[in-house]
Amino acid sequence: MSNCLVAQSGGPTAVINATVAGIVKANQMNPYYDKVYGGLNGIEGILKEHFVDLTEMSDEENIILKQTPSSALGSCRYKLKRDNIADFEKLFEILEKYDIETMFYTGGNDSMDTVAALSQYAKEHNITKHRFVGCPKTVDNDLQIIDHCPGFASSAKFIATTALHTWLDVNVYTRQEVFVLETMGRDAGWLAASACLSGVVDVICLPEVVFDKELFLREVKKHVEAKNKCYIVVSEGIRYADGTYVAAGEAKNDGFGHVILGGAGQAVLSMILDAGVAPRGKVQDLCSAQRCFASGQSLVDVNESFELGMSAHMRSVDKEFTGKMVGLVRKDQEQYDVDFIAVDASEVANKVKNFPSSWILPNYAGITKEGYDYLEPLIVGSPVVIYENGVPAFVKPYYMR
Amino acid sequence: MSNCLVAQSGGPTAVINATVAGIVKANQMNPYYDKVYGGLNGIEGILKEHFVDLTEMSDEENIILKQTPSSALGSCRYKLKRDNIADFEKLFEILEKYDIETMFYTGGNDSMDTVAALSQYAKEHNITKHRFVGCPKTVDNDLQIIDHCPGFASSAKFIATTALHTWLDVNVYTRQEVFVLETMGRDAGWLAASACLSGVVDVICLPEVVFDKELFLREVKKHVEAKNKCYIVVSEGIRYADGTYVAAGEAKNDGFGHVILGGAGQAVLSMILDAGVAPRGKVQDLCSAQRCFASGQSLVDVNESFELGMSAHMRSVDKEFTGKMVGLVRKDQEQYDVDFIAVDASEVANKVKNFPSSWILPNYAGITKEGYDYLEPLIVGSPVVIYENGVPAFVKPYYMR
Repeated sequence: MSNCLVAQSGGPTAVINATVAGIVKANQMNPYYDKVYGGLNGIEGILKEHFVDLTEMSDEENIILKQTPSSALGSCRYKLKRDNIADFEKLFEILEKYDIETMFYTGGNDSMDTVAALSQYAKEHNITKHRFVGCPKTVDNDLQIIDHCPGFASSAKFIATTALHTWLDVNVYTRQEVFVLETMGRDAGWLAASACLSGVVDVICLPEVVFDKELFLREVKKHVEAKNKCYIVVSEGIRYADGTYVAAGEAKNDGFGHVILGGAGQAVLSMILDAGVAPRGKVQDLCSAQRCFASGQSLVDVNESFELGMSAHMRSVDKEFTGKMVGLVRKDQEQYDVDFIAVDASEVANKVKNFPSSWILPNYAGITKEGYDYLEPLIVGSPVVIYENGVPAFVKPYYMR
Repeated sequence: MSNCLVAQSGGPTAVINATVAGIVKANQMNPYYDKVYGGLNGIEGILKEHFVDLTEMSDEENIILKQTPSSALGSCRYKLKRDNIADFEKLFEILEKYDIETMFYTGGNDSMDTVAALSQYAKEHNITKHRFVGCPKTVDNDLQIIDHCPGFASSAKFIATTALHTWLDVNVYTRQEVFVLETMGRDAGWLAASACLSGVVDVICLPEVVFDKELFLREVKKHVEAKNKCYIVVSEGIRYADGTYVAAGEAKNDGFGHVILGGAGQAVLSMILDAGVAPRGKVQDLCSAQRCFASGQSLVDVNESFELGMSAHMRSVDKEFTGKMVGLVRKDQEQYDVDFIAVDASEVANKVKNFPSSWILPNYAGITKEGYDYLEPLIVGSPVVIYENGVPAFVKPYYMR
């Protein structure tokens, strides 16, 4: 017998731990692995042998883990570079030492590149003992091939709810004003588009559409003139025709090759005020809360994330199953349902799936029926939240124990 | 027979409509008034005779109204000035015209001044036909005499939950960084202090304590040195010893004599970065969402807000009951419970109740057991949220119909 290892990478989501809970639960139902190790802080911690033993997790902890947002095992932005042979050798040494047959890695397109690189290294060195399986997670929903990423729907639900409630908030005064909601999403508009589910968005700027200041101000003006208000949603990653970010003044680098965005909301508000389109306005930047606020998880999202972990475990008993990412595709039928699939991690690695241009209405007016039809089924249902003293119960992060 | 009128004023809360729902429901149980009018946009709309008829509200609408945040009747920042005789005369004319015996007004200390002023004017002019009753609401929780204000607890719950979940988020990376959560509250620290209910706050700056930059940075540094992280909460209204706001650079005036605060979080983060206490950090400004995000309402808060509306209606059948505000005081017993009371609105008007200094630990270290004992019972329980297509159902604002 042998063991498995699960670790988390990249930015947290509201349901990322449900995948870990699913892997642990699957191994309790079919104890294929002697031990389910949790690797702390992704590759970074694995290289330091920072492990916890999750094998005997109680059902109670498993349930609370599903409603605990953010990575309970910790995360990292450490990228395994293909030319860093020392890292690869060290990692395989550790896998050998702990008798790890399968390593599960949850993350976005960077993490899938890690899965692809490790399985490729194994293949090139005729190592057949260790397998590498990816589980997708990213609020950005920008992974290729699969229908959607676990984590996205809960963020989408939070964003749509916040849009609805802040719209109710900003409308109460008769005075002329605008409200700008800024969302994450990098170069993909999925999160921003999900604000449309609130049914209250007047003007929306997605990264898939070039930001044209004149056109934008004209559209905002129309709404302000018609009803004294304009509810605006902007994605952090909107750009001008020349490719520069609207938020350029604020942009920084996260030390991992990614630009940290933020400030697009403030930038467009300044344009509106400077142009005299409205005399006042407010920006709500949803910041970290949009990816980790878990009191409003989507039930569909939690269940899919959990089941995806189980599916990954089940498939991993196949000795040929390596370099794969388990994912979800939507069934071609009216009633929403998904099929679990497996794809080569290399096909997902380092690629971005944008919000389809054909689902975007002209003049920043919103999204099409196809967009709503895609988004709506994902945010349905709400898990029963277990509280402790009025605050959601949570599993203490394993990296803090 | 005659009618009553209910209107809302000041900033919205997550449960402000529950008070309206309570007044309407009470009148259905005891139809003392022929009609329950809703006045749109507070005094501003009443002066324009912008009324809706709420008398026959269905139970279904009543239930959804309770989970609809922000003022469904609209709000205003229009202050009835005592020397503006024309406004007073106009208002009493309208009350006469619509045969309004009692006017209920929900709001904060400004609105209670309106209630006091109207009843005083009536008294001075020997007008006995119209009565004026205030219902408290403000997320700031800064009203005198009463134990707490409806609206505060739901915001407190949202803030505590967001603090917990963003703390889980910021801890996942091993890198050194700080997180700053900025809350509303003006010159009172109630909202900021409620973040402590999460159990994760390292450093907290309340408006009741002079902001001492050196001491603050020293405390942050201690945490960063001990664990690479520091979770910081700041109230928008923190000030230096000379009385200037830490957020002074960003402060504006809301046209109503109040300074619009915001930017304290960014200001303290800049201090931390500039002093080299930590190399990176993030600010989450909870902005409007903290007062209107209603998917995480406190059940205690919703119920109390509803019952307070009922209590106001019941008491208002007493012909002597005018110039009063209905409120809640805590029973002197171990198990949390409240008594409904009535106080002179003038005693509450234009005064501020601060977070008690004796409940604040030195060195920005948090709050005392007395503080927790006060806050904890208020955020207990969560109403079952009714969703429509994945987004919370809501009552379309009456001012939009």
